Amino acid sequence: MSEEAKKTGANTMWGGRFSSSPSALMEAINASIDFDKRLASQDIQGSIAHSAMLAKQGIIAESDRDAIHQGLQRVLGEIESGSFTFSRALEDIHMNVESRLREIVGDPAARLHTARSRNDQVATDTRLWVREAHDRTDEQLTRLIKALLDKAEAHAATVMPGFTHLQSAQPVTFGHHLMAYVEMFGRDRSRFRDSRRRLNECPLGAGALAGTSFPIDRHMTAKALGFDGPTRNSLDTVSDRDSLLEFMAAASICAMHLSRLAEEIIIWMSAPFGFIRLPDRWTTGSSMMPQKRNPDAAELVRGKTGRVIGSLVSLLTVMKGLPLAYSKDMQEDKEQLFDAADTIEIVLAATTGMILDLEPVPERMAAVAGAGFSTATDLADWLVRSLNIPFRDAHHVTGRIVSEAEKRGCTLEELPLEAMQAVEPKIHKGIFDVLGVENSVRSRTSFGGTSPVRVAEQVAWWRERV
Amino acid sequence: MSEEAKKTGANTMWGGRFSSSPSALMEAINASIDFDKRLASQDIQGSIAHSAMLAKQGIIAESDRDAIHQGLQRVLGEIESGSFTFSRALEDIHMNVESRLREIVGDPAARLHTARSRNDQVATDTRLWVREAHDRTDEQLTRLIKALLDKAEAHAATVMPGFTHLQSAQPVTFGHHLMAYVEMFGRDRSRFRDSRRRLNECPLGAGALAGTSFPIDRHMTAKALGFDGPTRNSLDTVSDRDSLLEFMAAASICAMHLSRLAEEIIIWMSAPFGFIRLPDRWTTGSSMMPQKRNPDAAELVRGKTGRVIGSLVSLLTVMKGLPLAYSKDMQEDKEQLFDAADTIEIVLAATTGMILDLEPVPERMAAVAGAGFSTATDLADWLVRSLNIPFRDAHHVTGRIVSEAEKRGCTLEELPLEAMQAVEPKIHKGIFDVLGVENSVRSRTSFGGTSPVRVAEQVAWWRERV
Amino acid sequence: MSEEAKKTGANTMWGGRFSSSPSALMEAINASIDFDKRLASQDIQGSIAHSAMLAKQGIIAESDRDAIHQGLQRVLGEIESGSFTFSRALEDIHMNVESRLREIVGDPAARLHTARSRNDQVATDTRLWVREAHDRTDEQLTRLIKALLDKAEAHAATVMPGFTHLQSAQPVTFGHHLMAYVEMFGRDRSRFRDSRRRLNECPLGAGALAGTSFPIDRHMTAKALGFDGPTRNSLDTVSDRDSLLEFMAAASICAMHLSRLAEEIIIWMSAPFGFIRLPDRWTTGSSMMPQKRNPDAAELVRGKTGRVIGSLVSLLTVMKGLPLAYSKDMQEDKEQLFDAADTIEIVLAATTGMILDLEPVPERMAAVAGAGFSTATDLADWLVRSLNIPFRDAHHVTGRIVSEAEKRGCTLEELPLEAMQAVEPKIHKGIFDVLGVENSVRSRTSFGGTSPVRVAEQVAWWRERV
Amino acid sequence: MSEEAKKTGANTMWGGRFSSSPSALMEAINASIDFDKRLASQDIQGSIAHSAMLAKQGIIAESDRDAIHQGLQRVLGEIESGSFTFSRALEDIHMNVESRLREIVGDPAARLHTARSRNDQVATDTRLWVREAHDRTDEQLTRLIKALLDKAEAHAATVMPGFTHLQSAQPVTFGHHLMAYVEMFGRDRSRFRDSRRRLNECPLGAGALAGTSFPIDRHMTAKALGFDGPTRNSLDTVSDRDSLLEFMAAASICAMHLSRLAEEIIIWMSAPFGFIRLPDRWTTGSSMMPQKRNPDAAELVRGKTGRVIGSLVSLLTVMKGLPLAYSKDMQEDKEQLFDAADTIEIVLAATTGMILDLEPVPERMAAVAGAGFSTATDLADWLVRSLNIPFRDAHHVTGRIVSEAEKRGCTLEELPLEAMQAVEPKIHKGIFDVLGVENSVRSRTSFGGTSPVRVAEQVAWWRERV
Repeated sequence: MSEEAKKTGANTMWGGRFSSSPSALMEAINASIDFDKRLASQDIQGSIAHSAMLAKQGIIAESDRDAIHQGLQRVLGEIESGSFTFSRALEDIHMNVESRLREIVGDPAARLHTARSRNDQVATDTRLWVREAHDRTDEQLTRLIKALLDKAEAHAATVMPGFTHLQSAQPVTFGHHLMAYVEMFGRDRSRFRDSRRRLNECPLGAGALAGTSFPIDRHMTAKALGFDGPTRNSLDTVSDRDSLLEFMAAASICAMHLSRLAEEIIIWMSAPFGFIRLPDRWTTGSSMMPQKRNPDAAELVRGKTGRVIGSLVSLLTVMKGLPLAYSKDMQEDKEQLFDAADTIEIVLAATTGMILDLEPVPERMAAVAGAGFSTATDLADWLVRSLNIPFRDAHHVTGRIVSEAEKRGCTLEELPLEAMQAVEPKIHKGIFDVLGVENSVRSRTSFGGTSPVRVAEQVAWWRERV
Repeated sequence: MSEEAKKTGANTMWGGRFSSSPSALMEAINASIDFDKRLASQDIQGSIAHSAMLAKQGIIAESDRDAIHQGLQRVLGEIESGSFTFSRALEDIHMNVESRLREIVGDPAARLHTARSRNDQVATDTRLWVREAHDRTDEQLTRLIKALLDKAEAHAATVMPGFTHLQSAQPVTFGHHLMAYVEMFGRDRSRFRDSRRRLNECPLGAGALAGTSFPIDRHMTAKALGFDGPTRNSLDTVSDRDSLLEFMAAASICAMHLSRLAEEIIIWMSAPFGFIRLPDRWTTGSSMMPQKRNPDAAELVRGKTGRVIGSLVSLLTVMKGLPLAYSKDMQEDKEQLFDAADTIEIVLAATTGMILDLEPVPERMAAVAGAGFSTATDLADWLVRSLNIPFRDAHHVTGRIVSEAEKRGCTLEELPLEAMQAVEPKIHKGIFDVLGVENSVRSRTSFGGTSPVRVAEQVAWWRERV
Repeated sequence: MSEEAKKTGANTMWGGRFSSSPSALMEAINASIDFDKRLASQDIQGSIAHSAMLAKQGIIAESDRDAIHQGLQRVLGEIESGSFTFSRALEDIHMNVESRLREIVGDPAARLHTARSRNDQVATDTRLWVREAHDRTDEQLTRLIKALLDKAEAHAATVMPGFTHLQSAQPVTFGHHLMAYVEMFGRDRSRFRDSRRRLNECPLGAGALAGTSFPIDRHMTAKALGFDGPTRNSLDTVSDRDSLLEFMAAASICAMHLSRLAEEIIIWMSAPFGFIRLPDRWTTGSSMMPQKRNPDAAELVRGKTGRVIGSLVSLLTVMKGLPLAYSKDMQEDKEQLFDAADTIEIVLAATTGMILDLEPVPERMAAVAGAGFSTATDLADWLVRSLNIPFRDAHHVTGRIVSEAEKRGCTLEELPLEAMQAVEPKIHKGIFDVLGVENSVRSRTSFGGTSPVRVAEQVAWWRERV
Repeated sequence: MSEEAKKTGANTMWGGRFSSSPSALMEAINASIDFDKRLASQDIQGSIAHSAMLAKQGIIAESDRDAIHQGLQRVLGEIESGSFTFSRALEDIHMNVESRLREIVGDPAARLHTARSRNDQVATDTRLWVREAHDRTDEQLTRLIKALLDKAEAHAATVMPGFTHLQSAQPVTFGHHLMAYVEMFGRDRSRFRDSRRRLNECPLGAGALAGTSFPIDRHMTAKALGFDGPTRNSLDTVSDRDSLLEFMAAASICAMHLSRLAEEIIIWMSAPFGFIRLPDRWTTGSSMMPQKRNPDAAELVRGKTGRVIGSLVSLLTVMKGLPLAYSKDMQEDKEQLFDAADTIEIVLAATTGMILDLEPVPERMAAVAGAGFSTATDLADWLVRSLNIPFRDAHHVTGRIVSEAEKRGCTLEELPLEAMQAVEPKIHKGIFDVLGVENSVRSRTSFGGTSPVRVAEQVAWWRERV
């Protein structure tokens, strides 16, 4: 450690001990209890199921099982109440729990680890944890979808500019825009569900790597822990971290979706746009500049995308090129999982809160939607439909009409019929039916289109699915 | 460009033109035809379906449709035969095809783009391409699984050392080891199938972003192109690249699995291990050192993992924070997709080839499997099972027996009964039944265990699923 | 390959051959000539330097050297003119060049590879290429900085809103804003220069991995190729890809900077902002909506960030966990390098073009800068400076004054003195000197501040360094 | 939260509060005090320098400065002793410190924040922290290099097989192999030094984004905090996270180097290789299998590479596409920095410990080095040097001789002279001088080669630089 680092007190955790004592360093790099204590509840669940099975199969006595169960319940109580003392010397959650169990119940504790290894034990704990993370994320996604549906339904007919390249392209409705996110989060939810279904096999009973010679019943423990059945190959079971990777991959795509919505909220909140209002609870202000509404929550949602993607990259890198079966590198999986799961949960919750609370400013949206000749496509389509002009030619006619309006500094609606007829003589006053943004939006009745009636159908379709 | 760069002829593609002409630079950065021509077949498929629907709905005449169909078939023929001239000035595959179509059939071509936009067109083309990529990957995975099943069945009883931390832990069988990869690739295949099912909705008809006012039938085009139905929200449809991301995520996890197998092949091929032989076709040698068998194919499989993960990171980064709907950033999706799909296909094919051709060296595997007291766990389990010693205590007894064997320089099998009894008097000669590696392997009969009978069952289970 | 893939002609490159012929597959995965032909000029440079040294040291005859030199010049000519036929069977650029050399000059060619290996040869070629890529990037960065300096100088006093959280915070000048990017690109350039300096050691002479027993002079070849000297450890030399990684890391940070500027250009170009105008050459429009100016070039610059970061992640993943010395995985380095270098070069050039051509719309910038009580900080600072009110208290006083202005619907400048005195009696009319945006900007004269005089100093400081 | 999640007690941190209270959620996502308290010492250093400058410039009274200084020292003491109570309601470290300062010294505390903003304050704190992280990493790298030099010197002549593709290629020495890592870590150190030099500019005084109108002296505060001078552009200053990214990029490359060494340690420790011995303190064993030496420390070093790369990807993703100046997304920078810095520090320390303690097994290394015709290159080079045979032809002759040896099952040394002469009549007994591994190693005297004399020179060159 540099003199400067010493002076400023940095690195007090590692510095000195590293120089003097390799064993302290080894403990620091090796012990996992600081983070794997989050698996305490899952570890105890697993041990209860395992010991019940051992007794059923006659591998341990029923009295031992009962002692173990009572002891584990007490350990769980101590952990939940905060009275449990975790020990780094005992390395991990498994040894911390078993050691305390032995203090409480004595000899029977020594039979708990029969026909089990820390390798299948930690795989089971982690599988249970990641399964719960899937369920929490699923619930958060469902809440967000519901919030979007409510807001979309209320604004199925609220006209806003539809952008491509952040340039006004065609008018859409705010409800339609929000429903685009329902589709994204719906796919996300579907992805998490597929992943949950795939992971729902029980690692317990794979042993260190080769299975065991004890007459265990893996189907019984699998069932007790809510799994569809046991995993099929013991070597794979202790080497596999796919369920974490798939969770992180789905979370990365979901976080990307959230970052897009967050970006839009930030842009909509900017003074020049002014498309939405968001209550103070989702922004931070300044006592000096009380008009300021910094959309901090949206910015954090956008930024935390990096965190989730980083977790995925980390674990993919960890796993790359590892020979079978268990290698210690894999201990790096848990912190990444916990961080990704905590992050996706909080950004989903924050986004749901913002969606529930944000209110559009329809007059501002309508003003921008009406500018920029955004109904030029409607004009071209009318030429095709009403005058049977081939589309590519209609496209050119429209271009000349828009140029004329631009020259005169008026909108398409304000352009006199004769000016249009100067470009294409067959145009008649029916054209004015399609030039307003309201009419434009109403006309897009193709399946999935922005017409309010279609948006309402989309909302109804989704209502049945949440 | 530096003098040096000029001298060495580097950068002749960009250098000069960039300084003199912004428009040349814009063309270079903007045009996509150099890569999106790989979508030619999909683009033409989509246009055939679209024009058939337009005619059915009375939006264009049947005679126009027929002219368009004949013209598109001719364009496809020209492209497949290599006689088509792609033009950068026409920017992309869509305009290249349409422009040639107009040359061939004249006016009807001008009606093809009715009720369509390049935004839903490219989304459809890409969706078709990525769907085919899923199918190709699925087929390659199935081939690889079959190759592994054949090899595993042949070696269900071939003993090899089971490693944790690359240290010999317990004996397993080579068949069992290979079946671990069947589980991984089976999950991969399942992941690609879920993704394929999720993506199978047709973007065509979403228009630029808002749908269309023409009375199109999106269900008809969806069906013609083999989709389950149309997408539900037009804004989402032109903004969405999820199917590419999910393909790349599944491919990244799959590539990681392949990198683990490749790492093992490389280690097994090393002289000190000598576990397998691989024919010359998968290695490169040296005319000077004819004994050298460099496992180049396995190394490339391992290395290309980076490429696939890189593609995923690229596209996630591209999409992060993009407001709806279409932004030009998204044009960056295709090269990443093509590269990831080509890569996963070739590494799967190469791995299948290596698996088919590799042969284990059983005597070398058995020699290593038998060293290192690898049956110590069997001894401990025997103490529990036969003498009813609690597991944790049996663990300590075993430790002392192994120490004794280590001191004497003999294996556990070679240790005299009295030496064991000196540690634990209740031990009897039944102990010798579990100390050999063959016995050890045979005894692991728990579900998913390494016992040959279990491995055979795993093979049979998978045979039904491929 | 699926039936569908076959039908659509996809995957014609790999499909069929893979099933039938492992050797075709091995050639496809193994051969590098398709991409490493970009190293042709570097390869020939290296061979010229190597053979000159061999002759100088008496290892080959001077006549052999002369024949080799003349032959290599001819090969180079053939490659540059496009008349050279590359062969996949010859695998890589080294064997392609040497094979053609032997056809041209016969026996002397067989002496060229004395005291050399493909391992140090490819390391040298790549080192030369990446050094040139550094130089090209340096030059592109310098051009971009110059463009920014010109534009910043012209707009050193053009007031615009300074944003935090995309909310107006304090007024700044457009010149000051552009100079922020000069700092970023200046750091980028400095990073590329450090990297170039670090990489400038010559790999040639490291041999396959152990050096050579021939009496070669590595300092001579190093000097001939423009290196500061030879590398110091032959094993490291053939195992090392740091110079590529460092290039990609610097390029990733630089691409991130460019993505920020691109994002701003896109937002500034949006109709609600309307801060800048960009000529048509950097945008794409629509014949139908002639008002549309899609900032495609800026979007592509923003999007291609993903591509550069992806390359970095790819190569880091490839290199992770590789034992020494050369492994075939490393062949994956070149395509990532070429892509990253081409990409950073084109996005720098495109950004330079846009900066040269964009024009601010000062009246629009000023209008937004003046809204939102953006001089509230100036008011608070005046209270501290003129009335000696502690800063935290001045902060509260300001808050109350702004609230009053907000209530009245007026700006701070428009608020009557009495209204301010009602909050803080000591306020006098001197306050009005700091409430206008022009005055605010002029007052920020701290080093690095936004005052036009400071901006001019920043420009002058940089002018001396480009 | 799902029923199951509730039951198992997971997610107690977020679950309930999120449903009921948006403000609790906002606090949870927004507050940074949980992690930015690691900046306490830097924050106080900065405030001391800032207030000293304010007094010097007459902006605050000297008595205020003195009160502030004494108060800050007391706050620092409370934090270091652990008696300070951090408050989440006060959001971040800046407000926690200032609030406590006001409790201690009263009014003068309200003048501390004059001419400063949290934006330049946090930029300064972070810059100080990352500078110290550079220094700590530099020192750890230096220690590791020294450990490698000592071990390399001791084994400058210890022969081991040099591998390419993990296949024996040519003999090298263990010292030479270790010196390859000295080159890598030397480049890493050089990279961190360049980065430290580049970052050493002081952000303090940039204000919120535009500078300040107070007559501050930024050169004075810069000097007091050990910087080379102040940053040059206030907008850039509060928007810039380059120094963190560059640290993470350098750390990623360094971690990759460490992963290669770790991989080698793991392979060398495997029973079939048996190249090194590592004391128990760096491994974990098993009470049951006392022979087991799991190289956990090396595996963790290898695995943690993923973590560092993940941090880099996270922050690059966070920064991509952010408009100037400060956005809340940037708050995501600190946890990534802390994690990357802690990780690189501990993996460097652990690797240093392992290098100091590991011992090669020379007889095992020599045995493998001598197998596999590893001196075939020496034979070919002898043919060129002694018989003037062109290299490519010598290459073919060697191939035939090695084939003959392989056929006879003997080494090259054991092959009778006549057998060689049957292939090439001019061969004489001088050939035997180059066929032994010891001779081979000694002969590689080219600069950077594996000859012990060259290795000693490399060691000496580096000794002068550490």
